[in-house]
Amino acid sequence: MSKRNAFYAQSGGVTAVINATACGVIETARKHKDKIGKVYAGRNGILGALTEELIDTSKESARAIAALKHTPSGAFGSCRYKLKSIEENRAQYERLMEVFRAHDIGYFFYNGGGDSQDTSHKVSQLSRKMGYPIQCIGIPKTVDNDLPVTDNCPGFGSVAKYVAVSIREAAFDVKSMAQTSTKVFVMEVMGRHAGWIAAASGLAGEADGDAPHIILFPEIAFDRERFLSRVKHCVNHYGYCVICVSEGARYSDGKYLADAGSTDAFGHTQLGGVAPVVAHMVKQAHGYKYHWAVADYLQRSARHIASGTDVEQAYAMGKAAVRFALQGKTAILPVIVRTSSKPYRWKIGSTSLKRVANVERMMPRSYITKDGFGITKRCRTYLAPLIRGEAYPPYKNGLPHYVQLKNIQVPKKLDSDFSI
Amino acid sequence: MSKRNAFYAQSGGVTAVINATACGVIETARKHKDKIGKVYAGRNGILGALTEELIDTSKESARAIAALKHTPSGAFGSCRYKLKSIEENRAQYERLMEVFRAHDIGYFFYNGGGDSQDTSHKVSQLSRKMGYPIQCIGIPKTVDNDLPVTDNCPGFGSVAKYVAVSIREAAFDVKSMAQTSTKVFVMEVMGRHAGWIAAASGLAGEADGDAPHIILFPEIAFDRERFLSRVKHCVNHYGYCVICVSEGARYSDGKYLADAGSTDAFGHTQLGGVAPVVAHMVKQAHGYKYHWAVADYLQRSARHIASGTDVEQAYAMGKAAVRFALQGKTAILPVIVRTSSKPYRWKIGSTSLKRVANVERMMPRSYITKDGFGITKRCRTYLAPLIRGEAYPPYKNGLPHYVQLKNIQVPKKLDSDFSI
Repeated sequence: MSKRNAFYAQSGGVTAVINATACGVIETARKHKDKIGKVYAGRNGILGALTEELIDTSKESARAIAALKHTPSGAFGSCRYKLKSIEENRAQYERLMEVFRAHDIGYFFYNGGGDSQDTSHKVSQLSRKMGYPIQCIGIPKTVDNDLPVTDNCPGFGSVAKYVAVSIREAAFDVKSMAQTSTKVFVMEVMGRHAGWIAAASGLAGEADGDAPHIILFPEIAFDRERFLSRVKHCVNHYGYCVICVSEGARYSDGKYLADAGSTDAFGHTQLGGVAPVVAHMVKQAHGYKYHWAVADYLQRSARHIASGTDVEQAYAMGKAAVRFALQGKTAILPVIVRTSSKPYRWKIGSTSLKRVANVERMMPRSYITKDGFGITKRCRTYLAPLIRGEAYPPYKNGLPHYVQLKNIQVPKKLDSDFSI
Repeated sequence: MSKRNAFYAQSGGVTAVINATACGVIETARKHKDKIGKVYAGRNGILGALTEELIDTSKESARAIAALKHTPSGAFGSCRYKLKSIEENRAQYERLMEVFRAHDIGYFFYNGGGDSQDTSHKVSQLSRKMGYPIQCIGIPKTVDNDLPVTDNCPGFGSVAKYVAVSIREAAFDVKSMAQTSTKVFVMEVMGRHAGWIAAASGLAGEADGDAPHIILFPEIAFDRERFLSRVKHCVNHYGYCVICVSEGARYSDGKYLADAGSTDAFGHTQLGGVAPVVAHMVKQAHGYKYHWAVADYLQRSARHIASGTDVEQAYAMGKAAVRFALQGKTAILPVIVRTSSKPYRWKIGSTSLKRVANVERMMPRSYITKDGFGITKRCRTYLAPLIRGEAYPPYKNGLPHYVQLKNIQVPKKLDSDFSI
């Protein structure tokens, strides 16, 4: 096998640990210079390949690359962009081949969730359908934890830890204030379709009566009366009520709770405002003083409180992807295989890109308590190891010292531009 | 001086480090058992004194008390309750004397902000006006950093660190996504009247073009056109725009920005929703895709990312308060006196309760840039040392291991109840 260059790119919503995966890819590739020439990173995901905006990672020091392991977000820029099929948009694939050929790219590593692995899957067809030799390896990433096959997704453990820590802390606060002030606290978390992140909040409570008292999952149809009656019960019994609501919480007719508030107030339908809607509903029904928080990007970028397990796995996925490529594999994705929960043990497996592309994994019903407001012991057993370990970044002047790469672009070799 | 018991209570909004102050008070008092008998904590602040709900802290182990140093919120419960003057409500003061006399309380330590120190100040008048011998020492606490005299307030440094860290992390996220997705991110922070917390977000940016690009202070009247034009400039020049807005941001006529959104949508005026209002304003004017976050209680309870300086000072204030009491002082409050910024040095001073009660300290205009959207070098010099140092709590199973005290109540000695 002659030496060829690699393309690596980050896709979809970024996470606290996607750069740890980048670190795993680049560090491992650097150890195999006999087979992998340079690692070129796509500026803004696959767009960088289409526009020939390739970042030469060989210009970065070993130290800078190592620092990616503790730096959140996508160091090379990400994108929300999905390739059409070869049949629908052949020009795109011809462009990709043109760019790859010009830069002698023989390895394609694409780091993203279900939508992004659809792109990896399509690129992997270049070899078979269009005769361009390329090994295409997907690398899992998503805070939503909704990829199939893999036991969990890199990125999720850290957001899970953030959410569990935050709701525990806020609950301590509310409890102190409840006698004369705030009685109800609502925290909104991500997860439009799957309730994995909301479920993680449940780890904050260990004893009966601990917060969160109510979790609202997208998987369970929202029932206003049952919810309000539970809130009242909590305030009467514990003196306060802490609620974690998924941005995807919805009524039985499929309508998002967030829609009600945001449409009235602002005339738009972008999600991300279900917490005030829920809080206001409680206020109207019971008159309790409330506070609400919307963590939004804070939760997925919170590298300062990343899970040790997550950072380790994110790095390992990057490393495994390169090893698969070196073994001559293509059209696959490394996955995390749990071999034991207590003690937690896992190993690296693999699956085909086809199996993960565009598939969403919901929470099993057995992970949600019968009343629909909490998590079961089984869910706890699944989630607990994923938030373990603290992997603090270094600090400078009281702030995390995150790296900003030089991101030097490889000189373009093609005359033509390509409009997206 | 014969041995007498002490009363300690927490008041107003709680913080990540108010329990570190409690730890300082109790540990120091325990070292002087010849003069201070037991430390009784008020359940829910001054209310505990009025209702004779006193918590016997001597029932807690040394280990539990030490753990208060790393536990956020108010371990004994706080309150939002202000005593009237002796002239207005003599019955309240008679009740306080009755409770204090029944439990031989000779020391009164009240841990809170400006409103709370008004209560301390009034209690300190018991000696002079009503002949009950008590030494009354206030202890500063407030995330708002708006107490006069003291260089800074315990509680502020940690929220400042949380806000600076969070906005740095979220900005990394937005920057990665900006090409094809979110271009504008708005984070709302506390500080209804003073912009100290919003100002702290400015520490996240160190180089030109770094986020946050715009800070909206309560001290600077909001000008819609100037703001929108600045947002556009940032997106054009940096590709994205990160905004930190204080919940107290308002128009030149004094109307809160938050009012617009929350009144329309929910018919109430509780603040805490200015981020969506600002984000929507940007969307309407420029069409940029946005995200917004409201940190709310998360910011003030985030003990996991507390400032080392803050924890140290919070503990020191508690210790100093007891020392002042042992020296026979009354009607005073320990304060932080900065003796040098570079290197940062501080010492403990004191001031009279009268001077701090009900006084709010705003940001000096010289701390805000001329254009009103950022912080000056002078402000940075002031803020920087306050967020320094990481004082991580211990973890168990991936979560901060916070203490929950037994909070055993002292048997009541009075027959009478007292209605608040």
